[in-house]
Amino acid sequence: MALKTRFTEMFGIEHPIVQGGMQWVGRAELVAAVANAGGLGFITALTQPTPEKLTEEIARCRTLTDKPFGVNLTILPAIKLPPYAEYRQAIIEAGIKIVETAGNKPIEHVEEFKKHGIKVIHKCTSVRHGLSAERMGVDAISIDGFECAGHPGEDDVPGLILIPAAADKIKIPMIASGGFGDARGLVAALALGAEGINMGTRFMATVESPIHPNIKQQIVDNDERATELIFRTMHNTSRVAKNLISTQVVAMEREGAKFEDVRELVAGTRGRNVYEVGDNDAGIWSAGQIQGLIHDIPTCAELIHRIVREAEEIIHARLDRMAGARQTVAA
Amino acid sequence: MALKTRFTEMFGIEHPIVQGGMQWVGRAELVAAVANAGGLGFITALTQPTPEKLTEEIARCRTLTDKPFGVNLTILPAIKLPPYAEYRQAIIEAGIKIVETAGNKPIEHVEEFKKHGIKVIHKCTSVRHGLSAERMGVDAISIDGFECAGHPGEDDVPGLILIPAAADKIKIPMIASGGFGDARGLVAALALGAEGINMGTRFMATVESPIHPNIKQQIVDNDERATELIFRTMHNTSRVAKNLISTQVVAMEREGAKFEDVRELVAGTRGRNVYEVGDNDAGIWSAGQIQGLIHDIPTCAELIHRIVREAEEIIHARLDRMAGARQTVAA
Repeated sequence: MALKTRFTEMFGIEHPIVQGGMQWVGRAELVAAVANAGGLGFITALTQPTPEKLTEEIARCRTLTDKPFGVNLTILPAIKLPPYAEYRQAIIEAGIKIVETAGNKPIEHVEEFKKHGIKVIHKCTSVRHGLSAERMGVDAISIDGFECAGHPGEDDVPGLILIPAAADKIKIPMIASGGFGDARGLVAALALGAEGINMGTRFMATVESPIHPNIKQQIVDNDERATELIFRTMHNTSRVAKNLISTQVVAMEREGAKFEDVRELVAGTRGRNVYEVGDNDAGIWSAGQIQGLIHDIPTCAELIHRIVREAEEIIHARLDRMAGARQTVAA
Repeated sequence: MALKTRFTEMFGIEHPIVQGGMQWVGRAELVAAVANAGGLGFITALTQPTPEKLTEEIARCRTLTDKPFGVNLTILPAIKLPPYAEYRQAIIEAGIKIVETAGNKPIEHVEEFKKHGIKVIHKCTSVRHGLSAERMGVDAISIDGFECAGHPGEDDVPGLILIPAAADKIKIPMIASGGFGDARGLVAALALGAEGINMGTRFMATVESPIHPNIKQQIVDNDERATELIFRTMHNTSRVAKNLISTQVVAMEREGAKFEDVRELVAGTRGRNVYEVGDNDAGIWSAGQIQGLIHDIPTCAELIHRIVREAEEIIHARLDRMAGARQTVAA
């Protein structure tokens, strides 16, 4: 049981399923579980409070798996910038071979990673940013549609359009991100021109995900309409779970509230209490529309194997039967 | 060369490709061209100024094809309602066997059509509306995602999520609408749980489409970002081509303009001049994000045959090769 694509070949993994960078969530237990199941997981660098702690987290992950895994480095606008160069150096010195970059102007980081023989996947939300990353020399693109949790950009182009539009212009392998959580989505992504999928919200609701069980259950309970787009008026849109705080932020933005007032509201909440204490309404937390298709909390191995097995069924049973012009026979 | 699905079987058509109702565009020439190519086309009832003219248009279509075709009846909020019951009666008396309904509260029309042995496809933009139509007794659902031209509803759920979410709950056959224009999209829709696709914008840019060549070329030239969502503030959202008028409407809505002022602006434009004179900026006109993937102006036969041929290639070459566990052999 396996799906072979340009992406699985390039990164030496068994299944074309990636667990991309998620702030607070991308820790050793989850990443190792994904790796052991044949997928590609990423530790999120900035989840660790210091570069030294990141070095320790990478070492901890190596005690849990001997399969390939990567580290995500996300560059976002902030008033007080994290020490990006030091995190980057920690990644390089730890001997990590795969990095996921995301956010604005990654060129300095990409060049440094490439110099050290590290393969780089850059995540972006538009065809033009994908082309720009390709010119920078990254090895693969993770193209992220409007459906996604976190930052969808400001173009509002969903995967059905964005993936083939990107595939028409980008030559390096692409994985599709945003709105993926099951076998149907994986086969759709492969048909649209991607070589695999990235899943975020779906991996949050797994046994090995290091968030409070209440929040995993909240993802199961939420439907596809229970997300909000916040910070739209600041051109820094983020898709988050609908709750008391996000609903209030959207209402403030609709009424033309000042940036400072919105920021004060959000800063006054306890975002990490969402994941640590399991209080849905404690603050802003990211969730994608795919939560409408998430109905259980499996282990990463159960999830990945189910997706691959069902994807093969969709291809060999449903699609081959519909197309019908050839017969399939057991190999 | 054919793709057989529950939808093609139910409606007695060769290919699972539908040209759904489009105001001003769904006329006999286009509908007959789609039918002759093995797809399912719909005359748009309200494009005709009177029920008598609709009767003539149906008769004219029958001189152009002996294959099945249907009529679309869209029920939209309006200050002065068209004589819906009379249009409906014209459809029934003409002996039409397939109707596409769209818009709010179609139950009275659905019951009347069903009483006369007419198959009804209801187009809607959410799972709950699809379930409600299924309970009403319609034969199939056309589920319309956020990407679509015209009315996407207010939930902003794209097809990647909406199609499988609907497939999990709706038992009657579904076609996927919004964001479809090529073989990649068709195979994705089939993988996601649909039994075919509906295309609007893609059929506007065909040889037989009865709109001005300038506008067909405009669709080819526009990319996936060149649409606007207007009437958002009135909870009657519509996706239209980005041009001078739609950009102005969006700006007025952002600034909190009154409904009356926006309506006055739009009423003062000459929407039909877009299609008749070929003036992109003459008024508001519908276009979906799929325009970013439209690069030519083929005949309907070329388009439909290309999509089916390439869909078979994607299934039998790309996907079967990736899944690999079985070999395909020529039948």
